Amino acid sequence: MRKKYSLIEQLNPEYDLFLPSLSVDCVIFGFHANQLKVLLLKPEHHKKWALPGGFVYKDENVEDAATRILQHRTQLKDIFLKQFHLFGSAKRTRQKHAKKLLEDSGIPDVENHWILQRFVSAGYYALVEYFNVHPTHDEISTECCWTDLDKLPELIIDHKEIIEKALRTLQLDLNYEPIGYNLLPADFTMKELQSIYETILGKKLDRSNFQRKILSYGILTKKEKQYSGGAHKAPFLYSFNKIKYYKALKNGLEKEWY
Amino acid sequence: MRKKYSLIEQLNPEYDLFLPSLSVDCVIFGFHANQLKVLLLKPEHHKKWALPGGFVYKDENVEDAATRILQHRTQLKDIFLKQFHLFGSAKRTRQKHAKKLLEDSGIPDVENHWILQRFVSAGYYALVEYFNVHPTHDEISTECCWTDLDKLPELIIDHKEIIEKALRTLQLDLNYEPIGYNLLPADFTMKELQSIYETILGKKLDRSNFQRKILSYGILTKKEKQYSGGAHKAPFLYSFNKIKYYKALKNGLEKEWY
Repeated sequence: MRKKYSLIEQLNPEYDLFLPSLSVDCVIFGFHANQLKVLLLKPEHHKKWALPGGFVYKDENVEDAATRILQHRTQLKDIFLKQFHLFGSAKRTRQKHAKKLLEDSGIPDVENHWILQRFVSAGYYALVEYFNVHPTHDEISTECCWTDLDKLPELIIDHKEIIEKALRTLQLDLNYEPIGYNLLPADFTMKELQSIYETILGKKLDRSNFQRKILSYGILTKKEKQYSGGAHKAPFLYSFNKIKYYKALKNGLEKEWY
Repeated sequence: MRKKYSLIEQLNPEYDLFLPSLSVDCVIFGFHANQLKVLLLKPEHHKKWALPGGFVYKDENVEDAATRILQHRTQLKDIFLKQFHLFGSAKRTRQKHAKKLLEDSGIPDVENHWILQRFVSAGYYALVEYFNVHPTHDEISTECCWTDLDKLPELIIDHKEIIEKALRTLQLDLNYEPIGYNLLPADFTMKELQSIYETILGKKLDRSNFQRKILSYGILTKKEKQYSGGAHKAPFLYSFNKIKYYKALKNGLEKEWY
């Protein structure tokens, strides 16, 4: 087991915990009221907002670091998480804000601190169920909340670009992986699922085409209809079937264009 | 302009040229005799083969490092190059081979050398025209050659996994980006282009479907037929049209599945 340090302690250069020059940034997508949302933090001493992120322990797989950062932020396990791009511009530093944080925390030798150097960042995107996450800020941020993707505030460094790239990747991934259900509760209607796809792709979809394609993956289970008592027909509820999913994955889930 | 160092000089820790713990590995694909091929190197003091790779200068964008490494290896400019994955396993080190190389090169303080530490590697794949590349090894490798993708020799660290991931990404990318032509000479027949797609995707494609889809991108130019003088009909030649391509990109080149 790795020793637990507070976020401030982790910055103490004496501990030398992390891989130098590499960070992880997580674009955590949620869906609520027909809006795609992303989880943002307000770092202390900073006017701009930031993606939840962190560093990679020297003996830790980058993938595990992303999972750890995501769990720490959402308190959720078994989340759909996917690496999508390495952001490698030579200009990626966050001098000013980090310096102030270090000084306030009584960290020694601030000028030469590793966090002031250039960072290459591995971008991961996650799909979570909106109501399962209770945004809470930590000791080095003052706010944490869901923000509509089309109303992003000012973001630090290249975090806006990271979110845009995450969205483009998600849009493409939807074409060959039926991952949209990760944004929904365990039981959902076909209409809810279609609405998620329409929001992510930014366009209306034909209802019967959508239903046919989604069902063709064979990974949804249709639930027995509950007697609703009302005059209107209640819609069918579906749930995602993990066993069918892994079976389908084995047989090559991907739909090819050619 | 950056000062030029030889590959051995670059390893001298006194120069402190590179970002620590980050490397770049290039999967360079070529196509010849109906085979997809990949360019491999035999590092000195090593029984196994390796992908061409390198490190990122402290003031260099990761993307530029990949381009530089690729140009150094192929002597080609304007190559199709795409980042596809960051390989972040904590076990990525190449102790033995690197140690021997350092000792032989008279590098001081070998035990603590940065190259012996863990490296996270950014994977890029490139598509090049086979006959344009003249494989030549460098001062720290003994061989360099094209190898059939289905006859890979033993490879160092996770380089086999890197090649497999590159191929899977290329297969998916072909679904929404018409990049296959990068593997062909300036003028090519529809049959040659289809053969490339069939080889990459590992399956036969319907001729008229393929032609319809590829032409629907509107980025190929059909050449005037040359009088061949023979009894048989000569096939049409096509070339890739850069202006049309950038115009199509602007209008959203991607074909959506939904």
